[in-house]
Amino acid sequence: MKVKKLKTLLIKIFKKHGLKDNHAIISSNALINAELVGAYGHGLSRLKMYCDRISKKVINPKPKIKIKKISQSISHINANDSIGFVAADIGIKVAIKNAKKTGVGLVAIKNSGHYGLSGYYAEQAVKKNLITMIYTNAPPAVAPHGSLKSLFGTNPICFGTPTGSNIPFILDTSISMINRGKIRVAARNNQKIPEGVALDKFGNQTTNAKKALEGVQLPIAGYRGSGLAWMVDILSGVLTGGNHAGKVKDPFDDFTGPQNIGHLFITFKANIFQKNFNQRIKENIRTIKKLPKIKGVKEILYPGQNKFMRFKENSKKEINVPNIIKKDIELLLK
Amino acid sequence: MKVKKLKTLLIKIFKKHGLKDNHAIISSNALINAELVGAYGHGLSRLKMYCDRISKKVINPKPKIKIKKISQSISHINANDSIGFVAADIGIKVAIKNAKKTGVGLVAIKNSGHYGLSGYYAEQAVKKNLITMIYTNAPPAVAPHGSLKSLFGTNPICFGTPTGSNIPFILDTSISMINRGKIRVAARNNQKIPEGVALDKFGNQTTNAKKALEGVQLPIAGYRGSGLAWMVDILSGVLTGGNHAGKVKDPFDDFTGPQNIGHLFITFKANIFQKNFNQRIKENIRTIKKLPKIKGVKEILYPGQNKFMRFKENSKKEINVPNIIKKDIELLLK
Repeated sequence: MKVKKLKTLLIKIFKKHGLKDNHAIISSNALINAELVGAYGHGLSRLKMYCDRISKKVINPKPKIKIKKISQSISHINANDSIGFVAADIGIKVAIKNAKKTGVGLVAIKNSGHYGLSGYYAEQAVKKNLITMIYTNAPPAVAPHGSLKSLFGTNPICFGTPTGSNIPFILDTSISMINRGKIRVAARNNQKIPEGVALDKFGNQTTNAKKALEGVQLPIAGYRGSGLAWMVDILSGVLTGGNHAGKVKDPFDDFTGPQNIGHLFITFKANIFQKNFNQRIKENIRTIKKLPKIKGVKEILYPGQNKFMRFKENSKKEINVPNIIKKDIELLLK
Repeated sequence: MKVKKLKTLLIKIFKKHGLKDNHAIISSNALINAELVGAYGHGLSRLKMYCDRISKKVINPKPKIKIKKISQSISHINANDSIGFVAADIGIKVAIKNAKKTGVGLVAIKNSGHYGLSGYYAEQAVKKNLITMIYTNAPPAVAPHGSLKSLFGTNPICFGTPTGSNIPFILDTSISMINRGKIRVAARNNQKIPEGVALDKFGNQTTNAKKALEGVQLPIAGYRGSGLAWMVDILSGVLTGGNHAGKVKDPFDDFTGPQNIGHLFITFKANIFQKNFNQRIKENIRTIKKLPKIKGVKEILYPGQNKFMRFKENSKKEINVPNIIKKDIELLLK
């Protein structure tokens, strides 16, 4: 399907579910971006879920979003159970504005929902010559170190910086061995997942995606990954006023109330300490790319480069919409 | 050796090498703290190295440290090749002051050196009810993903937060599978290192600590760990004006010039968004501690708890000074 046609359909669907024009556009853009960068677990596979949550009144289609200015640098946003895309879009824009004005921005959001890819918001800040760090929590998927039960979300750590080129450095890494979205896609398509990334509900290793969804995802690097997940839960949940300690509801399975996810956006000017930041980072990347490579590696890539290339490549083509999602779209348009 | 006696000796040694009284005290306290928390790779095993660097004029014993105030929140410090402990001590104190005044602090340091444990500085901020994130780079030890050669340091990621109790939450995690300091201690004591944490200079797995020091340390979680190490290099090196991209000299082996390590301190008030932060984090920790545990696990610990317990335990006892270090001390006092 052509991007333009798909976008028109998505906007129509979101508006039909009660979203305001600009909120429908923001949400559609975010979903299409996920498809274009190849992050299918955050793209169309979630469309029906978002609409179901609106229909069941656990996403508020007409939120009254309140922005509380604590200082020129610091803002606190109550998203009033909006769709996560809209809350995050406002959040990163306020964080950009604050950093542009004072050098540094710190923006916390509460009462939000799943917002897709952190990297998508990081790119916006990087385009304005800011460095950014973004944290959000998610429903239980990963067991704290020493525990038998999932509690932490896949809690991504996101860092973005300008590079002096048009390809931003965007590290957007889950602290679980595998992204939960990828397991969902595998489960939908009856595909296997890699070994060593998840346990079934009995605590045994599994490559069955459906069993993994019922079980526990493993954190990266044992207690270190568990500590990083805990850090993200504190920064995005405890600090902001959002849910934390395993209380974020699974958006696919639990319609008993809003998710109340929290997000934290930190932004600062890349050239605040060194006027020639762009030159310095270019040199950094150049030096690392020149290192001797492992056999078979053509180029040492920085985080975000691959995604950028996929976006460029996929933007030239039509978007492949699986039959199962075509059916979702048909039903949601009715 | 009693802590008090050891401290007197260390201060005497540092002063003999030209450090001012208060700088000698700061440096001695940092080394003793590392011993007390059981981080021996950052403790007395480095005393001779610091003194050698002063003698060989690659650490400046009488630095003129300049603090440039960019805003009420943001400061840039030129440490003038001071011993790292002193630069970091000033850095965290400025970051605390800025955050106390405006809610958020952002402090970059350049022309510094190895400062020991990030967590030691994080604790200072946490005691003032601040959340903190601290980044520093280090000499090449870890190969970027896809490369055959070390370039990133073990580049720790450090995060600290108040917990509503007297035991702070301090995540201070290297992005390498093993701390370089630990390999040094193992090499000095002819001990083996675990499997899967390092390669020798030919790219083969090794458990020989001396061979590992000549080779490459492995990052946690493959490309994810490599990305995190790259992030730390940018935040502490590229951004601050410090060395980066593998240019930080090994403090033990390379006396051709100062290290010019950079550090970044981010601080903000823990209760800036939620007045009841302490209550919220207590609930967070309580919930996680109550989870069902893996067989053999007595308690789910948060990062920093173990270190705090070791500190408390070790503070009651004398410090065990290995013979090899006793000899260092004797020589350095001459």
